[in-house]
Amino acid sequence: MREFKRLTPYREALRMMLEDIEEIPDVEEVPLDRALGRVLAEDVVSPIDSPPFNRAAVDGYAVRAEDTFPAREYNPVELRVIDEVPAGGESKTKVEPGTAVKLLTGAKIPEGANAVLMQEMAEREGNIIKVLRPVAPGQNVAMKGEDVRKGQAVLKKGQVLRPQDLAILKSIGFKSVMAKRKPRVGIIVTGSELIEEYDEEALNHGKILESNSIMLKGLVKQYFGEPVFYGVFPDDPEEIGAIIERAKKENDLVLVTGGSAFGDMDFAHRFVKLLFHGTTIRPGRPIGYGERTFVMSGYPVAVFAQFHLYVKHALAKLVGARNYEVRVKARLTDRVPSQLGRAEFVKVWYEDGKARPIKKKGSGIISSLVESNGYILIPEDSEGYLEGEEVEVVLY
Amino acid sequence: MREFKRLTPYREALRMMLEDIEEIPDVEEVPLDRALGRVLAEDVVSPIDSPPFNRAAVDGYAVRAEDTFPAREYNPVELRVIDEVPAGGESKTKVEPGTAVKLLTGAKIPEGANAVLMQEMAEREGNIIKVLRPVAPGQNVAMKGEDVRKGQAVLKKGQVLRPQDLAILKSIGFKSVMAKRKPRVGIIVTGSELIEEYDEEALNHGKILESNSIMLKGLVKQYFGEPVFYGVFPDDPEEIGAIIERAKKENDLVLVTGGSAFGDMDFAHRFVKLLFHGTTIRPGRPIGYGERTFVMSGYPVAVFAQFHLYVKHALAKLVGARNYEVRVKARLTDRVPSQLGRAEFVKVWYEDGKARPIKKKGSGIISSLVESNGYILIPEDSEGYLEGEEVEVVLY
Repeated sequence: MREFKRLTPYREALRMMLEDIEEIPDVEEVPLDRALGRVLAEDVVSPIDSPPFNRAAVDGYAVRAEDTFPAREYNPVELRVIDEVPAGGESKTKVEPGTAVKLLTGAKIPEGANAVLMQEMAEREGNIIKVLRPVAPGQNVAMKGEDVRKGQAVLKKGQVLRPQDLAILKSIGFKSVMAKRKPRVGIIVTGSELIEEYDEEALNHGKILESNSIMLKGLVKQYFGEPVFYGVFPDDPEEIGAIIERAKKENDLVLVTGGSAFGDMDFAHRFVKLLFHGTTIRPGRPIGYGERTFVMSGYPVAVFAQFHLYVKHALAKLVGARNYEVRVKARLTDRVPSQLGRAEFVKVWYEDGKARPIKKKGSGIISSLVESNGYILIPEDSEGYLEGEEVEVVLY
Repeated sequence: MREFKRLTPYREALRMMLEDIEEIPDVEEVPLDRALGRVLAEDVVSPIDSPPFNRAAVDGYAVRAEDTFPAREYNPVELRVIDEVPAGGESKTKVEPGTAVKLLTGAKIPEGANAVLMQEMAEREGNIIKVLRPVAPGQNVAMKGEDVRKGQAVLKKGQVLRPQDLAILKSIGFKSVMAKRKPRVGIIVTGSELIEEYDEEALNHGKILESNSIMLKGLVKQYFGEPVFYGVFPDDPEEIGAIIERAKKENDLVLVTGGSAFGDMDFAHRFVKLLFHGTTIRPGRPIGYGERTFVMSGYPVAVFAQFHLYVKHALAKLVGARNYEVRVKARLTDRVPSQLGRAEFVKVWYEDGKARPIKKKGSGIISSLVESNGYILIPEDSEGYLEGEEVEVVLY
C-alpha cells in the first residue's frame, strides 16, 4: 500500500514552512485612498504634534483661568473681549490679565490664555463678558500633541491598514504610505474530470464543475495577495510539470490543487522539492510544501482547511502582517470527537459566545463551509472536546 | 443656553432612522470573479445536484458490494476487471455480478456498482482482482446531491459573499450572480479650520489636517458602499446648503461631518429635515438624521462612533445585508463607568476572550481608535460594568 511514510505533525510542518518563507523586501508608495487593507512596510513616526497647537474644544472665550478663580454667580468677574477669531482664523492678540478672546471650536488658543470659557457660561454686554463660575486651567482645551506627539510611532510595521489607521496618517500629514508589495500567488488547478463552465452533457458523463480556483482567488485577496490563475489542467505529467515550473518563476507563492495524494494520477508533488508531504491535519492530510509551492488536495473543503492552516500564514509572513486573524473564545454546543494523532480542522458556526460544530462531513461538501464562519483546531494529542467546553475559534 | 431640547435614546433613534431608509431595488449581474464582498440580491437555488452523479472518493474498483460480502483474507473473492476509466473519462460498461471497473478519484460510478474498493485493498493479477475484505454499499462513494440537491436554496438573499460562497456558486454552474448595486454615499466635510494637505505655515496658524474624509471613505467601502467625496467646505451656510442639496440628489446616503452641534458655525442641520437631532450616545451625541442624510460631528472619534452605531446599519439596510457584524463575548479587564442616561460607546482591545477598555478619552484622539479593535455599548440605564463582567464586543 503506497502511503505517506510519516505524517508530519501540524505545528512542525507549519514551522518548517514558515522558516522556509522569507518576507518580501519590495515596498511601494501607496496613496492613502488606496491603502485600505494594505500592509505597512515600516513604522510610521509622526513628524508633528497633533493637534499642532492648543485648541478650543468648544465655542467660547479664551481666558486666563486665574482671572476667573474669584468668579461667583453673586459676584461675577468681568473680562474685556479684545479680539474675535473668525472661523478657521487665528488671533495674534495676547490675552493679558482681565481680557478674553472669542473663538470657535477648533481654534488655536491665543498666547496668554490657558482655558476656554463655554459661550453659554458667559453673559455678554458689548465688549464685556461676565464670568459666573471659575474655569480650571486646561478646561475645554485640546492640548497640543494630546493625540500624537512629534516623533511618536503611531503605527507599527506589519499593520493591516484600517479606516482609523488611514485617518491618523492623514491627521499627521501623510498623503501616502509605504506598503509591502502584494505577493503574487499563482493558482494551478489540476484534474481531468474538471470543467470550468456549466455543460449539462459533460456533467452527465463524469465531469465536475471546478470551484477551487474562485475560492482560492477570494482567499488570496482576503489575505493581502494578488491571485494569478493559470487555469485548469488535465492529469498530464508533462503539462503539469511545465506549468508549475513557469508559475514558480512568476510568483511569490504557488498553489497547486489536486495531485497531492498517491493515486495513479497524483504527480504534482514530483515537480517540487518538498520539505514535507503529508501532515496530521484532517481534512487536508496530503498537503506538500517546498520551494514556495503548496501541493494541495483536490477537494474544496480540504483546500479551504489547508489554506487557513498553512497558506494564510505564509502570505502573512511574506508581507510581515501582524493583525490578520480574529480568534475568539467560545463554548461548544455539542461534543466533537477527534482521532488521536490527527489535528482536526472542525468547521463551526460562531454566534453569541457559542460555537456549533457543523456536522456535515466530507472533503467535497462545500455547503459545510458555507454554513460555517470559523473553525477550531483539535490538536493531535486530544480525543476531542466535550459539550460546553471552552474552545478557541478562528473566524473567517 | 442653546442645547438639544431632548436627547433621543439610541435605540429609538436607530429605529426611526432604519424605518426611514428603504432597501434599494437595483440589482446588477456581477461575474463571480468580482463578487467577493458583494451582497446577494436574491436567494440562489441550485439548478443541479452536486455532485451530479455518484463519484468515486478514492482510486480503486467500482464493485457491487454484495459480491464482496463473503471476502476474507483466507478466502478472497475474485472479480473480473471489465473496463478501466481514464482520468476524466466515464465507463459505459455495466458492472454485472462478479465484475469490477477500475476508476480514479472523482470518476462517475458505472451502472450496477454501488461501492468502491480502494486500490490498495485489491490484489491484481491480469484482469482479475482478489478482494480480501468486504466493502459496504456506498463505501468510498460521494453520493449524487450529497453537497447540494437540485432545487435547494444554497445561499440566501442578503449574504455578504465570502470565498466559500463563491465556490459553491461555481460548483453548481453559476458564472455570475445577482448582487445589490453598491449604494453611493456622498461625503461632505465642513470646517473653516480644516486643510487637506500638510502645510507647516498653516498648521502654525490655527489650521488642522482633516482626517474624516479618508476614514469615512474606508468605512463606507468596508460596508458595501461606494464613497463619493465632495470635498472640504468652509463654514459658509450658502456653500454648505448648496452642496448638501446636490449630494442628496446624487447619492443614496449623505454624510456631513461638522456643524451638527449648536455653535455659531454649526448649521449643516438647517438644510436637512431631521427626524431626530441629538441622541444619548457618547461620544457622538449631536448627530442628526433625515432625508437619507446624516449630520455628524466634526471630531473623528465621534464620527467613527456615529458611523458604527448608525451609518453602518443604514448601509446594511440599503442592500439588505445580513452577515455584516462580528459580535463576540468577552470579559472586561477593568471596570468601565458610565453616566446614567447616556449610551456610552467604549473602545476596547479584544484579545483572547478579554476586552481591555481604552482609557484615552476625547473625541479628537484618533490614536484611541487605532489602539482598539472593537467597542462595547453601555446602555442608558446602566452605570457601567465591573472588572471581570461579561460584555458583548462588536469587532471592527
